[in-house]
Amino acid sequence: MRNLTEETATEAVLEKLEGTEDPRLKAVMTSLIKHLHGFIREIEPTEEEWMAGIRFLTEVGQKCDDVRQEFILLSDVLGVTILVDSINHRVSEGLTETSVLGPFYVDGAPLLSPPVDIAGATEGTPLIVSGRVRDPDGAPIAGALLDVWQTAPNGLYDVQDSDQPAFNLRGRMRTDADGGYEFRTVLPVSYPIATDGPVGRMLEAVGRHPYRPAHVHFIVSAEGFAPVTTQLFVEGDPYIDSDAVFGVKDTLVVPFGESDDPTLAERWGLVPPVRTVAYDFGLKRQA
Amino acid sequence: MRNLTEETATEAVLEKLEGTEDPRLKAVMTSLIKHLHGFIREIEPTEEEWMAGIRFLTEVGQKCDDVRQEFILLSDVLGVTILVDSINHRVSEGLTETSVLGPFYVDGAPLLSPPVDIAGATEGTPLIVSGRVRDPDGAPIAGALLDVWQTAPNGLYDVQDSDQPAFNLRGRMRTDADGGYEFRTVLPVSYPIATDGPVGRMLEAVGRHPYRPAHVHFIVSAEGFAPVTTQLFVEGDPYIDSDAVFGVKDTLVVPFGESDDPTLAERWGLVPPVRTVAYDFGLKRQA
Repeated sequence: MRNLTEETATEAVLEKLEGTEDPRLKAVMTSLIKHLHGFIREIEPTEEEWMAGIRFLTEVGQKCDDVRQEFILLSDVLGVTILVDSINHRVSEGLTETSVLGPFYVDGAPLLSPPVDIAGATEGTPLIVSGRVRDPDGAPIAGALLDVWQTAPNGLYDVQDSDQPAFNLRGRMRTDADGGYEFRTVLPVSYPIATDGPVGRMLEAVGRHPYRPAHVHFIVSAEGFAPVTTQLFVEGDPYIDSDAVFGVKDTLVVPFGESDDPTLAERWGLVPPVRTVAYDFGLKRQA
Repeated sequence: MRNLTEETATEAVLEKLEGTEDPRLKAVMTSLIKHLHGFIREIEPTEEEWMAGIRFLTEVGQKCDDVRQEFILLSDVLGVTILVDSINHRVSEGLTETSVLGPFYVDGAPLLSPPVDIAGATEGTPLIVSGRVRDPDGAPIAGALLDVWQTAPNGLYDVQDSDQPAFNLRGRMRTDADGGYEFRTVLPVSYPIATDGPVGRMLEAVGRHPYRPAHVHFIVSAEGFAPVTTQLFVEGDPYIDSDAVFGVKDTLVVPFGESDDPTLAERWGLVPPVRTVAYDFGLKRQA
């Protein structure tokens, strides 16, 4: 294992995996080394370019903290996240399609009881989101858990914005006996992903815009069913066909309409017309 | 650009590079996306495996600081560094072969005048390193700059070891009118690369040892010539054929012998026999 050359390097590095006991780890490392070397052989980086790559990756790692995950963002904008998602969720008819988790999910949002209001004092257009969670036969699932989160009208999540209280526009809730849920929030907006880091610089360098179409994030779970991580997108959003993280699917693009129903308005202390969106989630049974 | 699937995701992400003005950047990003997606398609990671990868890369980035470069170490142990090196230095007869820079190079080591002693108060077996720097015709190059560094006998570089003064076992020196150089150091030892980070854990998981054969690092440069980053390895070292970073080349493995020359011993205030190594560096003219 001396005198590694362009021709022999990959084989020599692969041979070093002979002692790998975990067969899955061995398969992953083998594929990684082959593709990584293939990339290097194809582009033949100068030493300055290699060092620029090292610096970029280092900066991505160092941009991460408790509330910012720049490597997830990198995975998102390179389409890796949606590819992993599509591989893991080959969806059948009637079940909700998945989308990317995104870098701003925070575990442990408060579990709220009806009437569920995640907007608190947030200024913005009130929005009522409602629907049911159903099993593959269309029957409602009672006690399913919805974990929802979104940005404020300024395009920032609570963890990016010191003016928002912790867990603003986040919340967990359970479906009622009929599988129903309803909560009050504010109309989501399209917004740029965080561009103050290396991933933002990369997008700029390749001439890509950083915008995501307006959306609300959901993780929907229920005992005995596979959890679904997804997003609902606002139909008609100008970025609906150029999402910076490739998360849009037709079945997740829904009309955020208006309701003149006086009962609904009264229930939430609003004046009609009230902005609303309705969506039924379909879960499949746990394998 | 909606409804990305396993089949369409790569093409959709590549289309987003249409606005990339820099043709080199476009080529690099195109190749990166193809190979990265190829890797994902081949291994079909679970979401937990994807997240483990995100966490690993984040940890590598966060392990880096002013004196530690864990991404270079990762590049080294995956054979990427030596591959980039071999692509950039297709060497001709008579010119010194290159090897990896390693993560512990520190710019700005003191420029020392003869007699050059980089060992200072370091305990260990004294070693005299000498030779010439030559041009492609074999003629000596006066005033060439050698930047050298190595570990102490405890296997640690100064920047890893608070017991060593700054720039211990590092120094820069110029060749004399005959292209000659000579300096005193201590005999290098084989040592493990830093294993207290994610790269060390990865090596352990794949059953690889972390050792490098004993060596002295050099960057040799001279006006009008291409600089050479290389290492001299101790012939007979037990790890000479299994270097954890794949840096060993036959032409860089040299006998670290003994000299009974009383003049040499007296010049350095030593008692014969004195451990010595001689090596002539060959530089090629700048393109």
